[in-house]
Amino acid sequence: MSDSPILLTPGPLTTAIETRRAMLRDWGSRDPAFIALTAELRQRLLAVAGGEGSHVAVPLQGSGTFIVEAAIATLVGPGDKLLVLVNGAYGERMVTIAQRMGRAVEAIRWAEDEVVESGRVAAALRADPSITHVALVHCETTTGILNPMPEIASVVAGEGRAFLLDAMSSFGALEIDLRTTPVTAVLASSNKCLEGVPGLGFALVRPEALERAAGNSPSLSFDLHAQWKGFEKDGQWRFTPPVQVVAALVEALRRLDAEGGPEGRRRRYQGNFATLLAGMRRLGFDLFLDEAVQAPIIATFRMPADGTLVFRDFYDALADRGFLIYPGKLTKAESFRIGCIGALDRRDFERLLHAIEGTLARLEAV
Amino acid sequence: MSDSPILLTPGPLTTAIETRRAMLRDWGSRDPAFIALTAELRQRLLAVAGGEGSHVAVPLQGSGTFIVEAAIATLVGPGDKLLVLVNGAYGERMVTIAQRMGRAVEAIRWAEDEVVESGRVAAALRADPSITHVALVHCETTTGILNPMPEIASVVAGEGRAFLLDAMSSFGALEIDLRTTPVTAVLASSNKCLEGVPGLGFALVRPEALERAAGNSPSLSFDLHAQWKGFEKDGQWRFTPPVQVVAALVEALRRLDAEGGPEGRRRRYQGNFATLLAGMRRLGFDLFLDEAVQAPIIATFRMPADGTLVFRDFYDALADRGFLIYPGKLTKAESFRIGCIGALDRRDFERLLHAIEGTLARLEAV
Repeated sequence: MSDSPILLTPGPLTTAIETRRAMLRDWGSRDPAFIALTAELRQRLLAVAGGEGSHVAVPLQGSGTFIVEAAIATLVGPGDKLLVLVNGAYGERMVTIAQRMGRAVEAIRWAEDEVVESGRVAAALRADPSITHVALVHCETTTGILNPMPEIASVVAGEGRAFLLDAMSSFGALEIDLRTTPVTAVLASSNKCLEGVPGLGFALVRPEALERAAGNSPSLSFDLHAQWKGFEKDGQWRFTPPVQVVAALVEALRRLDAEGGPEGRRRRYQGNFATLLAGMRRLGFDLFLDEAVQAPIIATFRMPADGTLVFRDFYDALADRGFLIYPGKLTKAESFRIGCIGALDRRDFERLLHAIEGTLARLEAV
Repeated sequence: MSDSPILLTPGPLTTAIETRRAMLRDWGSRDPAFIALTAELRQRLLAVAGGEGSHVAVPLQGSGTFIVEAAIATLVGPGDKLLVLVNGAYGERMVTIAQRMGRAVEAIRWAEDEVVESGRVAAALRADPSITHVALVHCETTTGILNPMPEIASVVAGEGRAFLLDAMSSFGALEIDLRTTPVTAVLASSNKCLEGVPGLGFALVRPEALERAAGNSPSLSFDLHAQWKGFEKDGQWRFTPPVQVVAALVEALRRLDAEGGPEGRRRRYQGNFATLLAGMRRLGFDLFLDEAVQAPIIATFRMPADGTLVFRDFYDALADRGFLIYPGKLTKAESFRIGCIGALDRRDFERLLHAIEGTLARLEAV
């Protein structure tokens, strides 16, 4: 619709109108037509990461945080111990989730602009055999940093521990190949690189890990073993699914396929990011991260050090021109973020840069 | 859209096309426009039950079961004890939820066709002063039975205990007046009598009960105190909201208002139910419940005792004609259910009856 703003956010983001139109019908949640839609959803999610032969897809109602909590509740048993590798807010959130539910948890922390290093992880695992699970955020939305996931996965598998991957901001665009990378569970949601609408998370999990986890979860709703068994029994959801959100995600997954899968999508996002970065540098903005560790998903820019730019004014002026940017989430520096994901291409970013240029001129003139 | 079936279900149900069209735009979840939409949502939810002066509205991502679990996790503390009044599957589910999270819980049970009696509740509360909370399902979707909610609320308040009301199948159509009925928390969801799409639950809670419950929940996601404080702080959701589902629900709430609120909606549903019941009796079907305890929400009919009708065949034949009915959920009798709720009126039920009549004739002729 013409009154939709352009969302430069980490999600909910700009979706294709065809994806939104898939929400225009009603579905009976126990009807064969919706059971078939759910089966297509689960199959397509696995296919995105090459997990058809090794994993099962378990979608769950709610936000991305819900699927992360459900995975920890289900897979990390009362006698287990979780190690979280933290270099941003979403890693910290996993620590909080585990603490709140009373699971044994430890963290190794890095600065927000530093990637997780496999050497420290290997040493920590060798030093503490009681650690059973390791969790990593693939791309930290806090900054947009890309952690060296395959390397960490390999170290964790080499030490014989289970590996939980929060792929919220990467799934569908950055490579995750479950045929070659040892991952116990991948967690993501409908409304980021898959370009669906929000309301659904999902886990791709090794079925043998789920079988061992039966009865672990202290939560009826956040029990991925029971959720999986429900789908296996009759193809239906245990509890009312967000039927329109499911329909939108299936349409979005078909579109991902038509774009050439994650590789095609990454190319488009990379183009968006390159256009954005070149333009922002021209306008005098600095990228917070070293470009070598920056994923083409969301870019954090420092606010100008001279204090002339106030985020609220900048945001409002861009919003008036139809572009919604995103506040920063750094603990130490003033910043803002611009997402490169969603149903957008280079031309949208050229228009954005034009709007930013005009906004800066207007704000300086005031 | 013309290819939407008519849903005779307890939700997800048939929604107005205007409600679905509200999902055609993208929203930035931290943008002032969406913050205003969230504020309107919370205000309208309170207004449906007259809770503006006494309660706060706390929406939560996910299905109806999620908001029930979140309410128990938050409001029933580790030192508290919950008494659940059970006459159907949704009461049993509350017992399971509390047991799974390790809360002290007891149940009083009635047969599925009997209403909860206040006398037994009063006696149980007097006999056990350690019970701090009592939970009731207003209208049990298992059968469609209407429990005498104001009477139970009054008994629970008289004994000085907190009262949790699962109003999933009643909110928006059956009377819940928080000005005159002592209820600590009302729990419901977007996709039943409010006629929104699924993906959102909500609690209307006394703020003093929430304040006392700070830190109770073992779940980060299912913490209604933190969820409430998030809204109070900056009007934003703690975690990614299902923005299109929110937009659809706000549109649905505006339509409820235009229909004359719950009283207007109840009249339409009552008309649907009366049309359905008269027609089904004419066709030889028996209502499972005594009409005196039947809510005009969802009707359970017994399968004919002669065994000539097979549910699957009946369902498929009606689905071919565009009507989706619902399986039974009784523990003891063969049955099926027909919902009276959703964006449907008497004429839809006349068409349904015509389709049922044609279906029966065809199935008998085979």
